[in-house]
Amino acid sequence: MSSQESKAQAVKDFTEVFPVLTEEFLKEVRIRNFPEESVKWIEKNIYHNVQGGKMNRGLSVVDTLKILKNDQLTAEELLKSRVLGWCIEWLQAFFLVADDIMDSSITRRGNPCWYKMEGVGMIAINDAFILESAIYFFLKKYFRQDPYYIDLVELFHEITLETELGQLLDLTTAPEDHVDLSKFSIEKHQFIVLYKTAFYSFYLPVALAMHMAGIKDEKAFKAAKDILLPLGEYFQIQDDYLDCYGDPKVIGKIGTDIEDNKCSWLINQALAKASPEQRKLLDENYGKKDPKNVAVIKQIYKDLEIEKLYKEYEEQSYIRLNDLILQTDDSLIKRQVFNAFMNKIYKRTK
Amino acid sequence: MSSQESKAQAVKDFTEVFPVLTEEFLKEVRIRNFPEESVKWIEKNIYHNVQGGKMNRGLSVVDTLKILKNDQLTAEELLKSRVLGWCIEWLQAFFLVADDIMDSSITRRGNPCWYKMEGVGMIAINDAFILESAIYFFLKKYFRQDPYYIDLVELFHEITLETELGQLLDLTTAPEDHVDLSKFSIEKHQFIVLYKTAFYSFYLPVALAMHMAGIKDEKAFKAAKDILLPLGEYFQIQDDYLDCYGDPKVIGKIGTDIEDNKCSWLINQALAKASPEQRKLLDENYGKKDPKNVAVIKQIYKDLEIEKLYKEYEEQSYIRLNDLILQTDDSLIKRQVFNAFMNKIYKRTK
Ligand SMILES: [Mg+2]
Ligand SMILES: [Mg+2]
Ligand SMILES: [Mg+2]
Ligand SMILES: [Mg+2]
Ligand SMILES: [Mg+2]
Ligand SMILES: [Mg+2]
Repeated sequence: MSSQESKAQAVKDFTEVFPVLTEEFLKEVRIRNFPEESVKWIEKNIYHNVQGGKMNRGLSVVDTLKILKNDQLTAEELLKSRVLGWCIEWLQAFFLVADDIMDSSITRRGNPCWYKMEGVGMIAINDAFILESAIYFFLKKYFRQDPYYIDLVELFHEITLETELGQLLDLTTAPEDHVDLSKFSIEKHQFIVLYKTAFYSFYLPVALAMHMAGIKDEKAFKAAKDILLPLGEYFQIQDDYLDCYGDPKVIGKIGTDIEDNKCSWLINQALAKASPEQRKLLDENYGKKDPKNVAVIKQIYKDLEIEKLYKEYEEQSYIRLNDLILQTDDSLIKRQVFNAFMNKIYKRTK
Repeated sequence: MSSQESKAQAVKDFTEVFPVLTEEFLKEVRIRNFPEESVKWIEKNIYHNVQGGKMNRGLSVVDTLKILKNDQLTAEELLKSRVLGWCIEWLQAFFLVADDIMDSSITRRGNPCWYKMEGVGMIAINDAFILESAIYFFLKKYFRQDPYYIDLVELFHEITLETELGQLLDLTTAPEDHVDLSKFSIEKHQFIVLYKTAFYSFYLPVALAMHMAGIKDEKAFKAAKDILLPLGEYFQIQDDYLDCYGDPKVIGKIGTDIEDNKCSWLINQALAKASPEQRKLLDENYGKKDPKNVAVIKQIYKDLEIEKLYKEYEEQSYIRLNDLILQTDDSLIKRQVFNAFMNKIYKRTK
């Protein structure tokens, strides 16, 4: 099989677990004799919110476990790593349903946001809670007998809190309705990115697979964190870059970070380099929906050569991250785990 | 000490644990070098939302453990039972912050709802998440070494899900903005009450204390559920009754269940007894803010003798619940646990 074929097969195998898990959760609700109307509501909630993403986070659990166990996974291990992968997708759904309300977003993955759906509204908040609760139902169902069960549960708790702290910082730094660039800084951007994205997107999938592989040494988890968190930061900075400079046909959406007052890497770099005149223009034009305002911001980015700065950052990050990976003690955790991530994201265009 | 003095002392001792826990959680955030502004935000969130309730649920953990262990608690056991009590108060805060948004409520415990506070708004959703996360931080900190640690964690997960399912049923049965009494029924009311209130308010405190007391027999937990869930139902029906017929000076608020389209015991009894003419009036007047509409509903309650029906229900419940308690196998779990609850709530006026 070519690598593309095997990737497609991995996606297919992963995807097939989703309806099974959904059905198991709905069954858990049905045994309480809940009105079928409520069961159907939960089914719609799950299908609308958990499905339809790129599933990179979920797939990473399976990929990582394969590397850690030299591609020798039993059918049971394969299934269980996919369940953990879906638990991350469920966690993400929990966050995104709430994030869309808090950001007043309209669409997500090409569909209306859940809270924008007819008859849903603020009930979406409780629906987000239910998505989170499903994670612990799956963990109990599939891992209760395993010695590392409590580690999985604690890991989800910990990463959930990290992400919530990142969200808090993001929400209070860049409120959706009030522009104040003096609240932004490169350091704060780093904090936000680390907490609201890197932990659950990069560290969590690998740490879950490590538990499944029987790794117990705290040093191994520390080593994984030391590489995966900076990798996650790099990934999010790419995301910020692509939002402004990516090809909408390739990334599948038109970026609106400037309009949405996002605490993006680009604006923080611009703020650090801006002259007093440019700063005044940034203050006056950032976070506004009018294309004229957006054009002013983009022009300043151009004048300050922010794109060039990004390219330099990208090169440096590549060198620095590969260096970090090379320095990892391969007996603690296989370097290939991190190389696999690097290969997926370095110089990505979408 | 008189029973009133010892009650006051128990409340004081319980209350004193709150700032300690809050500080421990804030410290956990501070070690990440989070901006002090964010730490202060979380502190405000906790003080606004976790504090200021009657603390009945939290105190019940301590009271129950005292009964289960013949009043022989070590200082450590006392502290740990108070921590569990506060975990319930934190759980309730998580639910209430979200519930107030979903119900478009204005005030809570005499203060503005958290989401109504200046600068908060929808950030309250993420703040609710953080309150929930704190529970698992406390459980880990205080119980990690205990053999029943995973039982506590699973219990909180399970009860959280039950409550969310109850909320879902409540929200879809009685949406805040759309009156449709055909969605109501006595059976549905029972379901809603059981799931959204009884599990976390009655079963949870006792089950937590049971775990601390070293009870392992599934039959004992089943026995506790069999009494505490009906007791919780009875408590909520009292609540529905007091909302309409209680003395506002005593209950500390003016009831608005009729105005708010609540799926209350009273309206469900009225719907079951109403003539076609009365039903028409109920449909036309329920869930409206105008005192004239409310008066029509109250008159129908009077004509249908709903208050008398309630008194009969109360008498019957008292007999039935005491019967259930008497039938409990005292070697599984001491009956006194349930009697203590009965004494607190039977014929309460607030
Ligand atoms: Mg968003
Ligand atoms: Mg956001
Ligand atoms: Mg982006
Ligand atoms: Mg409410
Ligand atoms: Mg409500
Ligand atoms: Mg009430």
